[in-house]
Amino acid sequence: MRRLIGIHAVTAALRKTAKGSAAIERIVIARGSRNPRLQEIVQECRRLGIPVRFEPTRAVGRLARTAAHQGVVAQTSARSYAALEDVLADAPEQCMLAVLDEVQDPRNLGAIIRSAEAAGAVGVVVPERRSASLGPAAAKAAAGALESLPVIRVKNLGRGLDELKRHGFWAYGLDAKGKADFDRVDYQDRCALVLGGERRGLRAKVAERCDFLVRIPMEGSVPSLNVSVAAGIALFEVGRQRRQGERAIGKL
Amino acid sequence: MRRLIGIHAVTAALRKTAKGSAAIERIVIARGSRNPRLQEIVQECRRLGIPVRFEPTRAVGRLARTAAHQGVVAQTSARSYAALEDVLADAPEQCMLAVLDEVQDPRNLGAIIRSAEAAGAVGVVVPERRSASLGPAAAKAAAGALESLPVIRVKNLGRGLDELKRHGFWAYGLDAKGKADFDRVDYQDRCALVLGGERRGLRAKVAERCDFLVRIPMEGSVPSLNVSVAAGIALFEVGRQRRQGERAIGKL
Repeated sequence: MRRLIGIHAVTAALRKTAKGSAAIERIVIARGSRNPRLQEIVQECRRLGIPVRFEPTRAVGRLARTAAHQGVVAQTSARSYAALEDVLADAPEQCMLAVLDEVQDPRNLGAIIRSAEAAGAVGVVVPERRSASLGPAAAKAAAGALESLPVIRVKNLGRGLDELKRHGFWAYGLDAKGKADFDRVDYQDRCALVLGGERRGLRAKVAERCDFLVRIPMEGSVPSLNVSVAAGIALFEVGRQRRQGERAIGKL
Repeated sequence: MRRLIGIHAVTAALRKTAKGSAAIERIVIARGSRNPRLQEIVQECRRLGIPVRFEPTRAVGRLARTAAHQGVVAQTSARSYAALEDVLADAPEQCMLAVLDEVQDPRNLGAIIRSAEAAGAVGVVVPERRSASLGPAAAKAAAGALESLPVIRVKNLGRGLDELKRHGFWAYGLDAKGKADFDRVDYQDRCALVLGGERRGLRAKVAERCDFLVRIPMEGSVPSLNVSVAAGIALFEVGRQRRQGERAIGKL
């Protein structure tokens, strides 16, 4: 059993449930709420035959384990990780993955999954150890993207990158020590954007495995960005180049 | 008295204190920590004559009001808001501001301040009401950028935008209903990127005041991005265009 919290997350899961690609088991709504978006959720549940229960706001908060539930919590069947082979079997030749080297804050993990889905990535790769789990905090931050974007869990990130390279991916590590600006490199058709965790960034043994190290140019005094912001910037730069059919502006 | 939590935030504030543009009053370090970056902080405090106190980790956690303190908390003099006139007096002709329409999560506010500073913006504008405060959660997420980037508070955001226009700014609102992609417009020399809050995005009366509404193209099923991610993407797109000396690719 997994909980989805908040209007965004529940609405997206309802859309997937309607299409058969997710399974909401029931929904709990805060009694007395007059938010029209909650009314829409209730109507959609009735249409889909999903049970709806009305509870006092405090009870919804206990279920959500946060006060930021916007009046709605959904319970879905448990989320499992996807296998790399399955994800790649369905992926187009020109595709993108985000690879996270020990991102430990579930809000960052969720926000990255949300951005990756929005940028058109085919999945997110995380290591088994020292990575935030796909619990309610990540699901809420993902705002529904967890329902549609596969998360692939690998035992060891270095070997995971080797596996990706065998499938034709080029690995671009985001690193302050990178020689090229991220927006002056040409991203190959199959690209994996590799991002370091909150504490120590990209680990040396992961950076070594990358084909290119690129950096986001920093104009001020802070040395780094929040990892979910950095991921969003890089993911949408790849998207921008693809939409605009741009080729290499600079060289590595 | 304001607290700064974590290695990033304290290190940046120490740099500013050394230059005279911030004032750390004292630092508390978790006793027994062997992190070399904490040692560096202690040495820098000794050099600058800032008192350092060693406390058990639990006491540091109580002071930080979070367990995610990385073993260090700094106390600085209270943070005040800047006046628009003062910020613009020092700003170059080609400059950028981020304007936040009711961003209420202090972690988002802090992350946006961090990204804005890194992208070379001259300040962040927030309304007096329904905006997250510059407390410890925002300061930690800003990772030191609060020490160097002015935050301007205006009574009313609509009138604030009018004021910016009188100073030669063009307002670009990020909105899902925008007609142009954010990466296909030409940002004027003085540009204000206007971002909506977590709950309802850009309010209609703020969107009306914008010169252009631009959207981040969404490839997946989620309808929006986290506001701090969206801000980072837009801020660095303006930066990219300026670094690359690009002119308009598309037209509004």
